[in-house]
Amino acid sequence: MKKHNFNSGPSVLPQEVLEQASQAILNFNGIGLSILEIGHRSTWFVEVIEEAKSLVKELMNIGEEYEVLFLQGGATTQFMQIPLNLIDHADTASYCDDGVWGSKAAKEAALFGNVHIAASSKDKNYSYINKNFEVPVSSKYLHITTNNTVEGTQWHNFPNVATPLIGDMSSDIFSREIDFTKFDLIYAGAQKNMGAAGVNLVVLKKDLVGKIKRKIPTILDYKNHIEANSLLNTPPVFAIYVALLTLRWIKKEGGLKEMEKRSLEKANLLYATIDALPIFNCPIAKEDRSNMNAVFFIEDENLQNKFLDVCKENGMIGVKGYRTVGGIRVSMYNALELSSVQAFCDLMKKFCN
Amino acid sequence: MKKHNFNSGPSVLPQEVLEQASQAILNFNGIGLSILEIGHRSTWFVEVIEEAKSLVKELMNIGEEYEVLFLQGGATTQFMQIPLNLIDHADTASYCDDGVWGSKAAKEAALFGNVHIAASSKDKNYSYINKNFEVPVSSKYLHITTNNTVEGTQWHNFPNVATPLIGDMSSDIFSREIDFTKFDLIYAGAQKNMGAAGVNLVVLKKDLVGKIKRKIPTILDYKNHIEANSLLNTPPVFAIYVALLTLRWIKKEGGLKEMEKRSLEKANLLYATIDALPIFNCPIAKEDRSNMNAVFFIEDENLQNKFLDVCKENGMIGVKGYRTVGGIRVSMYNALELSSVQAFCDLMKKFCN
Repeated sequence: MKKHNFNSGPSVLPQEVLEQASQAILNFNGIGLSILEIGHRSTWFVEVIEEAKSLVKELMNIGEEYEVLFLQGGATTQFMQIPLNLIDHADTASYCDDGVWGSKAAKEAALFGNVHIAASSKDKNYSYINKNFEVPVSSKYLHITTNNTVEGTQWHNFPNVATPLIGDMSSDIFSREIDFTKFDLIYAGAQKNMGAAGVNLVVLKKDLVGKIKRKIPTILDYKNHIEANSLLNTPPVFAIYVALLTLRWIKKEGGLKEMEKRSLEKANLLYATIDALPIFNCPIAKEDRSNMNAVFFIEDENLQNKFLDVCKENGMIGVKGYRTVGGIRVSMYNALELSSVQAFCDLMKKFCN
Repeated sequence: MKKHNFNSGPSVLPQEVLEQASQAILNFNGIGLSILEIGHRSTWFVEVIEEAKSLVKELMNIGEEYEVLFLQGGATTQFMQIPLNLIDHADTASYCDDGVWGSKAAKEAALFGNVHIAASSKDKNYSYINKNFEVPVSSKYLHITTNNTVEGTQWHNFPNVATPLIGDMSSDIFSREIDFTKFDLIYAGAQKNMGAAGVNLVVLKKDLVGKIKRKIPTILDYKNHIEANSLLNTPPVFAIYVALLTLRWIKKEGGLKEMEKRSLEKANLLYATIDALPIFNCPIAKEDRSNMNAVFFIEDENLQNKFLDVCKENGMIGVKGYRTVGGIRVSMYNALELSSVQAFCDLMKKFCN
């Protein structure tokens, strides 16, 4: 039985990326060594990281004022690393609180300075993006989560603000054509749209750092990583290589324009099916629905559990909602094929008959 | 031509580990999904991490008072995470300064409290382990680097101290039978003796944490990782899986007793060859020589460069000394076969004729 992988992350990867990664573990580029066995300062690996950085810049269409870093520790590490690097204790940072991850990011920032919640959609259980935000001019930055993986909402237009804009793009990076230059710092765990777990992409304007008085531990200081070209210490070599393979695949398939086209086809098909079938209910404001993660419910919990069982029986992986939210969640990242969404929609219809 | 991989890390891995890892990328345990595509909270992965933790405890012969964590960020992250978690600003931590890495660890600790250098071998260019250390009773811990990868020294007997003992075992973990219960916290990047780059083993006594007043960022607090069972956020799934495969291999081959036997065979052969050939000079005190990394020199720099060229021509990888030290460095981790050391020694002899 074919498995359809709707995991929220780590998630589905392109088949050719898996084949190339598997081969590189036996013999990397025909050099007679495994990708797992080469030194991170070898020409072999330096070429990998340089190509990956260059592809990130090309896909994002950003210039020399930005630096591309591959760091460890996931987005949760960025939650604290960003305020640690960008605000002093008397400073203020603004956060849009539109879901559990943005809320966690704001909580970490409170350890390093004053946090201003610019807007929140908590009043309606995070079922929409609150665009009525207010940012004090003294704020050092505004932080948004561009796609809320858990709740199923997404920013479809980005705010224009006078302060630097920071985007947690963990769950929608490289899934659409956007103006990345609106952002001063972008970060994303690789394990959804751009690779496997174990590496974090951080893209930032070089002039953003080095402006505060706090002493920063060596490994957490962006400045050190920029100077060391992401080779401050041993990087996660294999995870960076899988990211490179995925970036190559994105480019080859037609870049972000094509990713966006495919993403819209998949999301439109799924949401149309949800809306057409009365037992399924998506509580998310239509204009804010995520094209990455569709979160919806069957009101009758017994029936919902029955549906989740049927999904399992039919090889539909990872469609159970996040533990604190419940319901059904279908994640549709770059590597998920339209045929998988079609198969899922067919199953939904069949379940209703 | 067969490659002999003497890399200092990332380094050589057992062939069967590479084959199993390569296969798991195509189809993990026959489930029809790649190890890169499964959720970190799936039963599939929870079984991986549980088995890995259990094997670490078995190989170390340690009890329930210890917790095994798989974290990200490398040893350099531990340099700051240890003092961040274990000392308040008025507290003192002691460090043995026997090499560049221990020295860097002490430097990071100074951000979080008072650092006492218990002993240093800097006076003789880190060419020995200074065992005349002195630890104040008020010291919260003593930190040692059990093997100095860069300089080629190793602690062969561990100090008895009244304070908790912390060991950076990045380059000799699981290479010998030792009494791990002498240590209160042990850490090691996986990429030398126990896997690929991208994951850090941290083994600590549970009662060591939660004793200071400082507020710790969520992701850096050991307590949170202990409570979350290394699943606080998305862990480096594949790197942990490769560590599991390597741990299984160590156990199957005969455990630490066998690793130590092999290590001594390799190191004895190499050092005997160095000592027998007048052009090669190992400046390290004989009793402190590392069984993992042999660091030695040819006085005539032109001749040394010629030798390094000959090594390259003969498929000997990674034998150039660390950038700040120079010379020749031969790393002999668990997965390096005796035949590779034999081939290297043959080349040394041939070069002298």
